[in-house]
Amino acid sequence: MTDNSEVECDFDGILMLPFDPRDHDLDANFRLTRFANLSERTKKMPKDVVSKLMSAKPPRGEPEPEPEPDSQPQQPKKALDISERGSVFTKSTTLFGDLQLVQTTDFGYPIIDNPYLMGKIACANVLGDVYAKGVVACDNMLMLLAVSTHMTEKERDTILPIMMRGFKDCAMKAGVNVTGGQSVVNRWCIVGGVATSVCKEIEIIQPNKAVPGDVLLLTKPLGTHVALNLHKWMTANGDKWKFLKHSFSEEEVGKAHSMAVKSMCRLNRITAQLMHKYEAHGAIAIAEHGLLGHAETLAACQQNDVALSICNMPVINRMASVATQCGDGFQLMRGRCPEHSGGLLICMDREAAIEFCKEIITMEGPSARSWIIGIVANGDKTVHFSQQRVIDVNI
Amino acid sequence: MTDNSEVECDFDGILMLPFDPRDHDLDANFRLTRFANLSERTKKMPKDVVSKLMSAKPPRGEPEPEPEPDSQPQQPKKALDISERGSVFTKSTTLFGDLQLVQTTDFGYPIIDNPYLMGKIACANVLGDVYAKGVVACDNMLMLLAVSTHMTEKERDTILPIMMRGFKDCAMKAGVNVTGGQSVVNRWCIVGGVATSVCKEIEIIQPNKAVPGDVLLLTKPLGTHVALNLHKWMTANGDKWKFLKHSFSEEEVGKAHSMAVKSMCRLNRITAQLMHKYEAHGAIAIAEHGLLGHAETLAACQQNDVALSICNMPVINRMASVATQCGDGFQLMRGRCPEHSGGLLICMDREAAIEFCKEIITMEGPSARSWIIGIVANGDKTVHFSQQRVIDVNI
Repeated sequence: MTDNSEVECDFDGILMLPFDPRDHDLDANFRLTRFANLSERTKKMPKDVVSKLMSAKPPRGEPEPEPEPDSQPQQPKKALDISERGSVFTKSTTLFGDLQLVQTTDFGYPIIDNPYLMGKIACANVLGDVYAKGVVACDNMLMLLAVSTHMTEKERDTILPIMMRGFKDCAMKAGVNVTGGQSVVNRWCIVGGVATSVCKEIEIIQPNKAVPGDVLLLTKPLGTHVALNLHKWMTANGDKWKFLKHSFSEEEVGKAHSMAVKSMCRLNRITAQLMHKYEAHGAIAIAEHGLLGHAETLAACQQNDVALSICNMPVINRMASVATQCGDGFQLMRGRCPEHSGGLLICMDREAAIEFCKEIITMEGPSARSWIIGIVANGDKTVHFSQQRVIDVNI
Repeated sequence: MTDNSEVECDFDGILMLPFDPRDHDLDANFRLTRFANLSERTKKMPKDVVSKLMSAKPPRGEPEPEPEPDSQPQQPKKALDISERGSVFTKSTTLFGDLQLVQTTDFGYPIIDNPYLMGKIACANVLGDVYAKGVVACDNMLMLLAVSTHMTEKERDTILPIMMRGFKDCAMKAGVNVTGGQSVVNRWCIVGGVATSVCKEIEIIQPNKAVPGDVLLLTKPLGTHVALNLHKWMTANGDKWKFLKHSFSEEEVGKAHSMAVKSMCRLNRITAQLMHKYEAHGAIAIAEHGLLGHAETLAACQQNDVALSICNMPVINRMASVATQCGDGFQLMRGRCPEHSGGLLICMDREAAIEFCKEIITMEGPSARSWIIGIVANGDKTVHFSQQRVIDVNI
């Protein structure tokens, strides 16, 4: 059974064909996602563990090392003291006067079986954190890859070039070259990258300038993780699908998966451009800690005494129902469901936000729909998240 | 049995204590290197596979994507078209006129059991490629980490902070901040990083300027991979050690391991400084493809019609004998034995090289000994490698 859910995925002028392993002389049962253990794959490092690890103490008995006399670590003049994605950190370092170095890295395991689109998603995902800073021009990308020890040579030589090509094509669309990277052999297949921009301070939008009266914009629908899992369950035709098939049709699952893939491949680049035009007061990329997790990070870093209040949840059509029927093991309605290559959560003046929503559709088409999902009010740098209204998204 | 081979490893003013898991309330048998499968761990991607993968063709039926109208990928004005370490690429991109972006990334599996020193080695290893370009000032580092799914929470929370601390301390010694990174959960433990320098063209030494009459300098002894494996065999006390113990004492193995660890932790930073002073004509870091593999890469990129001729092999004391007794499965004498965080192979004028060797010892002490291992002659951009004379190194 081939992965037909991507047949309709015609966007950006390129027809995304379904990936059939037999077209590449591979076994019909070849599935890229099998080269990472699903149950373990989702074990991302929890946010608090990452924080704990980052405050690492020196081992016993060892004094602080003295920097060499001629070593003067660059002190960030105005560090963006915000750790997005929990385990991804992006900071600026002052270089040559008014130039800033914005860098981010992310890597993970294949989440879809189409290697070309998987490469694109990995690239769009890495760039997400750069765009969240309003940085439109990325200068250099590196690719991080691991081939699975369980892949045959034939599988490796077929799949890797296609995945790398997807990554490079996405980077080209973003106007950046992939100049290198690192590839190793690992038990699980890995794909990710590093994005670097050297830019002027004016190109960066600080994340911490929200003011009471702002609204919260979300630029991609939620539910990618639910859609990917549901599609996998349907393909495997196991107990989970047998339970859910009474409520959801194969067509619905296919459409949701297709929308998720489309959304994950989409760059947040024009979003970043418009953040400048409409004077955004800060943004963060939604990723593995879910909408609420990243909203909390954004709230905590604010200069003003504000709180973020979220009341709407735009979710890929039917995926909120799926999450509910699964007893919310996904934690979607609690705001903790991971997203892959998610949208940006942006603080912006209300009138500006309304114009933003119109203009981005004019520029990118109807799939670039954004939603006002909440407000910024006076508060204690926390997030109010209750009585969510689900907006079923069917673009 | 604790890892006592590092007891004597007193360098850079810091006493490197042996790592005893019991001091950290871990089981006495805890070994960091067990969280990566040794036999699979060494399966680095072969150089030709990497080249093949990098020339990836697009999948069937998909046209080349059109870059967006406002996308102008930065074209490298003078790309360093050399791919060191096989799978690590460093290139320069022209930015803001005469600024260059030099980046490199590497990640791999733990190769020693002391997590603090393992962090240091990982950092020194990543920086090696930047230093090979003569770039002394690195501006930013990111850390790449994966926790093994087989680690307990206690092990994770104990070992990771120590490893991260080692990485950060090494970076501090190099005068650079670690501003972020990414950490995931993986079957195997991973440690690595990204190093970035934004610098002026004059700070970079092009690798391709060797001329006939130059000599070849090597700045660290070979044999780290042999020493690490031998130490592991001795600790495991299996058949391999039972065969070798008649020829090598435990003390010799401990000393070799200690020298290897010291060497791997050592930064090539002062080497890079002196490359400017003594007008080096190009350099490359010695890593997983062994002395000959990287020498071939260096030879192939030369502007002039030169060949590199290597006749001396400085090897950590007794490790050449070990390799020979093992039937040279290590391929040490054939120049193909991997090195970890190896030295730089530098092309330089003969008189300058002699002065270089003296001055680096004055600056760094006797452990910074370098060797003239060959010459540059007229030729066809290849490497002559035969009738090697082994120099047993005992620093």
